Amino acid sequence: MHVVVPFAATDPKTRLSGVLTPEERSAIARAMLEDVASAIAATGYESTILSTAPLSGDLDTDPDGPISVTVDDRPLSIAVNAVLESRLAGDGDGDPVAVVMADLALATPIALEGLFSTPGDVVLVPGRGGGTNAFVARHPDFRVDYHGASYLDHRRIAGEVGADVETVDSYRLSTDVDEPEDLVEVLLHGTGRVPTLLYDLGFSVDEREGRVRASRREE
Amino acid sequence: MHVVVPFAATDPKTRLSGVLTPEERSAIARAMLEDVASAIAATGYESTILSTAPLSGDLDTDPDGPISVTVDDRPLSIAVNAVLESRLAGDGDGDPVAVVMADLALATPIALEGLFSTPGDVVLVPGRGGGTNAFVARHPDFRVDYHGASYLDHRRIAGEVGADVETVDSYRLSTDVDEPEDLVEVLLHGTGRVPTLLYDLGFSVDEREGRVRASRREE
Repeated sequence: MHVVVPFAATDPKTRLSGVLTPEERSAIARAMLEDVASAIAATGYESTILSTAPLSGDLDTDPDGPISVTVDDRPLSIAVNAVLESRLAGDGDGDPVAVVMADLALATPIALEGLFSTPGDVVLVPGRGGGTNAFVARHPDFRVDYHGASYLDHRRIAGEVGADVETVDSYRLSTDVDEPEDLVEVLLHGTGRVPTLLYDLGFSVDEREGRVRASRREE
Repeated sequence: MHVVVPFAATDPKTRLSGVLTPEERSAIARAMLEDVASAIAATGYESTILSTAPLSGDLDTDPDGPISVTVDDRPLSIAVNAVLESRLAGDGDGDPVAVVMADLALATPIALEGLFSTPGDVVLVPGRGGGTNAFVARHPDFRVDYHGASYLDHRRIAGEVGADVETVDSYRLSTDVDEPEDLVEVLLHGTGRVPTLLYDLGFSVDEREGRVRASRREE
């Protein structure tokens, strides 16, 4: 299995613009990438960061893993499909491919092992709101379409190519960080660089009525 | 193990008031209760519905399970703590108690089995926003406090009584239905009465940009 981590290097996490400056959004996105890459490295699998632009500086992961960086500035679905085509069919050796989004700030080695070890032609991890946070593809003809409710599209695409579909039930992997309301999940359950960075930026758990939120102190 | 399902029978799910009438909210809450009770019954464990008022009509579950209804109109934490005290200490036989919220509309027998079979003095399932969607208690002194970020409080309380804490990583059990944005999760991943009821009420998956939502057609 080879693990691919797509990463939007330029102006990332725009839906967090209301609570974070562009520099802070870049720092959070980079910290999430390093947390995800570290969790993958701890599983022992080789991974590739599929980045829209060259990364600034060396990637800091713990443990060091076999991690390479490939730059592809095409849209997400096209870039991921090129990897799937190359590795699953074409010149590939047929080794399975896993694709794990770079903003799964709660990912742990155990949760990722649960995904990687689940059998199935296509193994999906849904994200909140119909997204696809991660998957494993073992079928040569599976391709992605991340537009809209990609979870439903990926089930449909798998069906069209005759691939059986499994899903993985993991809160850690189903939680991606896109919107301000997601930040509190990182404060509550994160284990890596990102909760520390959020605390450094002034965020804390805000226990008002209903679901708690991350709030930021006034400077 | 005995499973307790707290249920707010009167004016439930007020945070859904913007999209559902009081009668519809009651119907959704009842359907969720029956889905949760059915999933528990399928695990083979005995359960008690801990309701704030008598249920109207017979509870419809599949399979029929050993399910009783107890009415306790006190606040949630007090009512649950009375059960914990009675069953874990006091006159109880020391058999573990599981508490599963009635609004876990994505709960399946497999997900619940995963919770029930996880060892630990206290086994917590966090909900989004710092809640506690379900837990198993095997320690005689563990008590609940559902106010605020109960997940953090429950970790603290467990520590204070010397109980070791485990958590269960399940998207299905970490998803409760409180707010309109939660409804799309039921449409996408639900397997019981509730998605059918939502479709009947005019809801469907709305694939606009970003996370998809449940939208309701105009009458």
